[in-house]
Amino acid sequence: MKIVAFAGGVGGAKLADGLAQLMRSNDLTIVVNTGDDFEHLGLYISPDLDTVCYMLAGLANQDTGWGRDGDTFHVLEQLHKIGGPTWFRLGDQDLATHIERTRRLKIGQPLSQITHDFCRIWNVQHAIIPMTDQAVSTMVNTIEDGELAFQEYFVHRNCEPKVKGFRFAGIESALPAPGVMDSINKADAVILCPSNPWVSIDPILAFPVIRSALKAKCVVAISPIISGHAVKGPAAKMYIEMGILPSAVAIAQHYNELLSGFVMDASDVNLSLDITIPFVATKTLMKTKDDRRCLAEDVLNLIQHL
Amino acid sequence: MKIVAFAGGVGGAKLADGLAQLMRSNDLTIVVNTGDDFEHLGLYISPDLDTVCYMLAGLANQDTGWGRDGDTFHVLEQLHKIGGPTWFRLGDQDLATHIERTRRLKIGQPLSQITHDFCRIWNVQHAIIPMTDQAVSTMVNTIEDGELAFQEYFVHRNCEPKVKGFRFAGIESALPAPGVMDSINKADAVILCPSNPWVSIDPILAFPVIRSALKAKCVVAISPIISGHAVKGPAAKMYIEMGILPSAVAIAQHYNELLSGFVMDASDVNLSLDITIPFVATKTLMKTKDDRRCLAEDVLNLIQHL
Repeated sequence: MKIVAFAGGVGGAKLADGLAQLMRSNDLTIVVNTGDDFEHLGLYISPDLDTVCYMLAGLANQDTGWGRDGDTFHVLEQLHKIGGPTWFRLGDQDLATHIERTRRLKIGQPLSQITHDFCRIWNVQHAIIPMTDQAVSTMVNTIEDGELAFQEYFVHRNCEPKVKGFRFAGIESALPAPGVMDSINKADAVILCPSNPWVSIDPILAFPVIRSALKAKCVVAISPIISGHAVKGPAAKMYIEMGILPSAVAIAQHYNELLSGFVMDASDVNLSLDITIPFVATKTLMKTKDDRRCLAEDVLNLIQHL
Repeated sequence: MKIVAFAGGVGGAKLADGLAQLMRSNDLTIVVNTGDDFEHLGLYISPDLDTVCYMLAGLANQDTGWGRDGDTFHVLEQLHKIGGPTWFRLGDQDLATHIERTRRLKIGQPLSQITHDFCRIWNVQHAIIPMTDQAVSTMVNTIEDGELAFQEYFVHRNCEPKVKGFRFAGIESALPAPGVMDSINKADAVILCPSNPWVSIDPILAFPVIRSALKAKCVVAISPIISGHAVKGPAAKMYIEMGILPSAVAIAQHYNELLSGFVMDASDVNLSLDITIPFVATKTLMKTKDDRRCLAEDVLNLIQHL
């Protein structure tokens, strides 16, 4: 069975890791959101891509959900001393990724090629592809502060401004990166990982050519909302601010006509009557590496029965 | 007595530190070569400026002559792993300087202002000014490889290509940084530190307005050549390749009509007959912080007697 998984931040990276534990390298492609990418300190930073790559490489910091395990912060400590901006936490080893990626982008290499090369060096067995090699930027439309670039909203403003919508700047002229459409077309199913629908999965679905291709596919989403709360990040807060009760039902309705199947947490089984497509209710919280594999098994089993 | 010192790399930084040990902060200005500055990994790197600033701040690595004392190389180690260029050795703490300087240059702040601010944070008491806020690049004309940018010649090619001349690209349209001409005009004497004449001091002297101003001044040079050898770096090699015997005499002749006085090493006293201006022969090798102060004392004494 060939699978494409769409992933954003930590939740997506964890399920991708679960799938990678179960699947042969040729059978799994992970397409990663790059709408959060931004330039900081002159460096091109791709947070979701790094989270997924570090996770599958076994380099991720499991405590923070971002950055690398055992990283140091010598550069940032000195940057602080000389008055530089330190609101975006960059470890020393992590910085090397950004420095080398930025150097290679500046000499014209595409992000997908650089990601492929880094993954090879990091011994990542499965394909990880950024959704696009062009600039697509998630803009957060807020009630009181107007439109904010994603990292400004997410890290600098700590998700405090109330949101009323999102825009993916540059989507009109961007193309899916090489390999994305091919892997979708060859896939038996597409998995929408338990990432924030608004800012992690929607940017990928915002490519008309991707959305069209999904209509003919078996698509399964995993709810990132458990018992009305996001495991991490502002997904639940965003739903509330836009007048939607955050729940597994809201997630299923979010993706609506795309879905062939749905996975929600066992604790949300009381919502079963409102889920109108085949679903499983299982343990979706992934605390351990085994949890990731178990959830991936449940998702693959559902797909096989659809 | 008010003094301006022109300085390049390690030798210049050491004498500047000796002068700083003896002089009040208002009485000493150090003008630093920026002809070696270059962009690397997207960062604006100013090696001589950093060497002088770190030295006077007590942050310099005394063993290497470049970088910071006790620095780590976590970023560079990772950069090596992912195939990035590591020929220019950048420590983690040192990187913060380059990252923040680059960030501030990109938003339009002049190098002299940034240097001033960094020095304030590092508790440097005396004024350190880059020779210019504009781009002036030392180009090394080599016999076999044509013209090379300075760091390409110096670090990447390890000074191996034979030189036949130098050019300071951009000098025509560049101006001395704010404070440079004012400090020269107010100075009782200008000291040409024991730095490489070709690539550390000549770039500063290449500004016509500086060279003119020096004609009316008491100018004293300290030979960076001791017993025919440079303490560090390629100065002696450069003299040989250009058909000049490297010696204290060659240094005095290099600066020629600018000089009012000269300081050479005691071991070169046999050359006295060929020095046609007032000079002292003393210990010029600066191994310790006391050595720096002693040499500075000798230089200031000579100036007072001129």
